[in-house]
Amino acid sequence: MATVKLWTDEEVSADARVKAVFDDIRATRKSDFVNNFWRALAHQPALLERTWSSVKAVMVEPGVLDPLTKELIYIAVSLTNSCSYCVHSHTAAARSKGLTEQQYAEFLAVVGMASETNALATALQIPVDPEFSAQ
Amino acid sequence: MATVKLWTDEEVSADARVKAVFDDIRATRKSDFVNNFWRALAHQPALLERTWSSVKAVMVEPGVLDPLTKELIYIAVSLTNSCSYCVHSHTAAARSKGLTEQQYAEFLAVVGMASETNALATALQIPVDPEFSAQ
Amino acid sequence: MATVKLWTDEEVSADARVKAVFDDIRATRKSDFVNNFWRALAHQPALLERTWSSVKAVMVEPGVLDPLTKELIYIAVSLTNSCSYCVHSHTAAARSKGLTEQQYAEFLAVVGMASETNALATALQIPVDPEFSAQ
Amino acid sequence: MATVKLWTDEEVSADARVKAVFDDIRATRKSDFVNNFWRALAHQPALLERTWSSVKAVMVEPGVLDPLTKELIYIAVSLTNSCSYCVHSHTAAARSKGLTEQQYAEFLAVVGMASETNALATALQIPVDPEFSAQ
Amino acid sequence: MATVKLWTDEEVSADARVKAVFDDIRATRKSDFVNNFWRALAHQPALLERTWSSVKAVMVEPGVLDPLTKELIYIAVSLTNSCSYCVHSHTAAARSKGLTEQQYAEFLAVVGMASETNALATALQIPVDPEFSAQ
Amino acid sequence: MATVKLWTDEEVSADARVKAVFDDIRATRKSDFVNNFWRALAHQPALLERTWSSVKAVMVEPGVLDPLTKELIYIAVSLTNSCSYCVHSHTAAARSKGLTEQQYAEFLAVVGMASETNALATALQIPVDPEFSAQ
Repeated sequence: MATVKLWTDEEVSADARVKAVFDDIRATRKSDFVNNFWRALAHQPALLERTWSSVKAVMVEPGVLDPLTKELIYIAVSLTNSCSYCVHSHTAAARSKGLTEQQYAEFLAVVGMASETNALATALQIPVDPEFSAQ
Repeated sequence: MATVKLWTDEEVSADARVKAVFDDIRATRKSDFVNNFWRALAHQPALLERTWSSVKAVMVEPGVLDPLTKELIYIAVSLTNSCSYCVHSHTAAARSKGLTEQQYAEFLAVVGMASETNALATALQIPVDPEFSAQ
Repeated sequence: MATVKLWTDEEVSADARVKAVFDDIRATRKSDFVNNFWRALAHQPALLERTWSSVKAVMVEPGVLDPLTKELIYIAVSLTNSCSYCVHSHTAAARSKGLTEQQYAEFLAVVGMASETNALATALQIPVDPEFSAQ
Repeated sequence: MATVKLWTDEEVSADARVKAVFDDIRATRKSDFVNNFWRALAHQPALLERTWSSVKAVMVEPGVLDPLTKELIYIAVSLTNSCSYCVHSHTAAARSKGLTEQQYAEFLAVVGMASETNALATALQIPVDPEFSAQ
Repeated sequence: MATVKLWTDEEVSADARVKAVFDDIRATRKSDFVNNFWRALAHQPALLERTWSSVKAVMVEPGVLDPLTKELIYIAVSLTNSCSYCVHSHTAAARSKGLTEQQYAEFLAVVGMASETNALATALQIPVDPEFSAQ
Repeated sequence: MATVKLWTDEEVSADARVKAVFDDIRATRKSDFVNNFWRALAHQPALLERTWSSVKAVMVEPGVLDPLTKELIYIAVSLTNSCSYCVHSHTAAARSKGLTEQQYAEFLAVVGMASETNALATALQIPVDPEFSAQ
């Protein structure tokens, strides 16, 4: 159940501005499959364009962090924000970029450990050591 | 201001159980500096031992994810949980493990993008595509 | 799947205290439909009464913020807390109070932007400018 | 204490790309004051440019939601994310856009109420009423 | 640094409505000390009255959960929400209600464990067992 | 829909390391039912062992907090983290440990109140009273 109707391919084709974004998603990913996230954003062409353009710049274009590392960081944020959709879509993306079962196990260990020590540090309201200052 | 008193080196030395953990932290990290997180946990020796033992297993012992990637995942969780102490301590750790300014810029771009799309996906309550199922 | 049984209209009618609240919800909203939130709270009459009385005071009674603005603030909190039920119910409420597609698009742009800059500000642990102090 | 050094006006002036963004911030806001958020982002010109360009598009350019409503939505997200910096900066922004004490009181009542009912709905895991579906 | 001015005792005394709440806080707690939370809410008498009246009903009046258990639940919510003020004030309250160092150690172990398994369950998007349904 | 396949009893029996953990869960809980959380972790034997060993130490072994209080603290963290699975499993666990309807009502009142005052304290950025310091 969503708060908006998801656009079908037929509806997308009838709107030139939305169609242009969907065409670029398909060309960039070399796949005909366009997931629900973009079908839900299709109602708002300006937001759709800006979001896809940022995702492409940040997640697709080559940089100094490798694509799998970027997906792991993305999942880490998404699970901490309890975003079910994003955890599913980016875990699938990480798998398609080569995530092995052993890497996933270590990833889970790190996010579990971080969540635990976050809770302890916040419970204890530990003051930041001056040694950690960047100034 | 913390909810507990932070232990000084003198107090640590007077408690054999706590001292053993602090000695292992110093030996493992090859540094005399022990940060406030451990000084705050010193009140609870069992929790101190279990936490250090897990941190050592997850973050220090070699695995299939490289140490810098693990730190970036840790920071991603910590900032999403708004844990000021953990953001500071693990950003410092990432720097000591070689984080470059350009890698940090990409990391920030990914966590910003993930936070934004998390908010959109949750606002729209987008149903998960069956294509993402692992079953 | 809920952690409590949802009360049917028949069960509500058999309990004078719960019935009084449901009658007031129906009269206030000028609608026979009472959503699951209240049916789940019906087990705890004191909490049901206090919650409805606060919701009525804060969201229904006229004030200086218009009803649609209050719904948008409500949705903003709910999506950041990742409360699926609340996002659905208050987006529906906002629509019934006149939310247009264009307003919704701007709302989504603001919550996406806020979530992104929250992540950046927390990652960078930026100190608050003294200019922002109210003192 | 930040995880990066904040750029002074002198350092900004020495970097043409950063200076261009700061000049536009000053011109857009008709004020010489540039707050720490931008001074912390100055290390990463591409992120600085993209963030300012989005903030300008979403928060500054006229739309169908009035500027004060957008600030209240922004604060609602920021306090739920526990972003101290953002709460301070956007509460100051809301005040400069005319927020009255009475509007602020109602805003606080709504965010308090939303946070409370979010907790109840999540504790009870209440299923979404089919009436709320947009499909 | 707060987003509002904190009221001094002198300012409180000059406002009959606010003074009545402060008098009741002092009488109820049998202490002259009134903490900053109430001094910040003093600007908004209606919210101040409703909040104090709820806190008194929920946290002060006798019920079936003992006062220390209620404080521990309060701290658990507050640290997960990363509310620094609330963690400090309710940890102090728990101590004044008899929290021992050993109870605090077990509390910390539980919140750490819960935070860790929350992260794992959300990362893995584990479906709820039908055995847990209350229906 | 999960991000991993859940292990059946047959698959568990074929892996000695995983089987040992499942046997201990069954023996400890005196029940043949093993919930999905452990079936999802079965892919990663080291994480499975460490997690069960910690859960057993923290939640099962006798301590100074009674088992029901520990479950309530666990649920409080889980609902604030919006972990649907954990809210369901630990509310069921609390019920099996004797949670009454009246205790649950008070628990809900406390978590609702805490969430509300957390939002207010963070919105107002109230400075911590020096009286709350443990130093």
